[in-house]
Amino acid sequence: MDNQEAILKLLLETLKANTSSTEKKEETYEIPVGVSNRHIHLSQVDMNCLFGEGYQMTKMKDLSQPGQYACKETVTICGPKGAIEKVRVLGPVRGHTQVEVLVGDCFKLGVVSEIRLSGDLHGTPGITLVGPKGSVQIAEGLVVAQRHIHMNSEDAKRLGVQDGQIVSIEVDGARGGIYSNVAIRANDGSALEFHVDTEEANAMHINALSKIRIIK
Amino acid sequence: MDNQEAILKLLLETLKANTSSTEKKEETYEIPVGVSNRHIHLSQVDMNCLFGEGYQMTKMKDLSQPGQYACKETVTICGPKGAIEKVRVLGPVRGHTQVEVLVGDCFKLGVVSEIRLSGDLHGTPGITLVGPKGSVQIAEGLVVAQRHIHMNSEDAKRLGVQDGQIVSIEVDGARGGIYSNVAIRANDGSALEFHVDTEEANAMHINALSKIRIIK
Repeated sequence: MDNQEAILKLLLETLKANTSSTEKKEETYEIPVGVSNRHIHLSQVDMNCLFGEGYQMTKMKDLSQPGQYACKETVTICGPKGAIEKVRVLGPVRGHTQVEVLVGDCFKLGVVSEIRLSGDLHGTPGITLVGPKGSVQIAEGLVVAQRHIHMNSEDAKRLGVQDGQIVSIEVDGARGGIYSNVAIRANDGSALEFHVDTEEANAMHINALSKIRIIK
Repeated sequence: MDNQEAILKLLLETLKANTSSTEKKEETYEIPVGVSNRHIHLSQVDMNCLFGEGYQMTKMKDLSQPGQYACKETVTICGPKGAIEKVRVLGPVRGHTQVEVLVGDCFKLGVVSEIRLSGDLHGTPGITLVGPKGSVQIAEGLVVAQRHIHMNSEDAKRLGVQDGQIVSIEVDGARGGIYSNVAIRANDGSALEFHVDTEEANAMHINALSKIRIIK
């Protein structure tokens, strides 16, 4: 057994020496980090219930993903065990209301935390939303975001990945480590960005300026 | 290059097949997970300032580490940007006051987040503590805990690690991954437990019942 391990170690070192130039090239391709706090995407029907018939949201700030923006509006979300105030509404309006919260929020609200990619809402918990003009109880749509990397097809080609692929992300530092199960979301309307929520960012002590690496 | 990789793959598979019985043995050695929220350890001098001269804390609940307990008492911690109420006091009294917070708390308080092992307080931020009988401004002692594994020397022997060693911890699941820089803290007054804070636990979606593995 010891001999086998020694042979393997030598072979691995040889391979590493041979591939180091390629690896270095890959590592210099920087991926910006985007950190999200809890937020909500609203359908027009739910928007009408919460803010009044035909209400239009008010853009406050563009987000890094083209066409996406934070709104002045916020809502309160209420579960069986507690409520969270001032949850930011993001625009534009979507086909289905989607509430993206932290795992810690799920304890506070008293709901199960379901890790999902955006849009995959089947079987997720419902929740009550309260706005200035009324409230609405959605039957499903409360998720904890699965970490993912947005990119366009050119980024995907350069990084050697494709839409739907699952990769890992490595982080250095005192709280470094590896995030597994990071989904590649490649389409030409997207800007390159690794998306995590505040708990995921804080756990690895990363922020928008951190350097990260894809591991396939 | 392709040939080299193919050879390596075959060799690795052979080695894996040969060592699987040993690996399985190691994996069945379970390490309980302990998740900490923010809390404070007080010196008697600071306790006197906050709760009154000669004050004795009131034990509420034993913790998993022998001799450690949560108290009924809480304090408010105040930084330049904000305050956090109801921070739990842990007993017994220590030589130096130590405030252990989350990275997210540091943003709220407006202080730098320093990742440290318990007791390593030199150069960490100060903070103001407020109790029912007075307040005290500590010059240093606010830390974000470095993840670590408590164990006794017998556990260390069985796990093949030693006090002060740095290992990694692997976690499965939709939010799985690897925590790097996990410090081994082996001494005979300790119970086997992997300690993370709530942000670290939520980021990997683990709790007290989760299965984890040491990677050396």
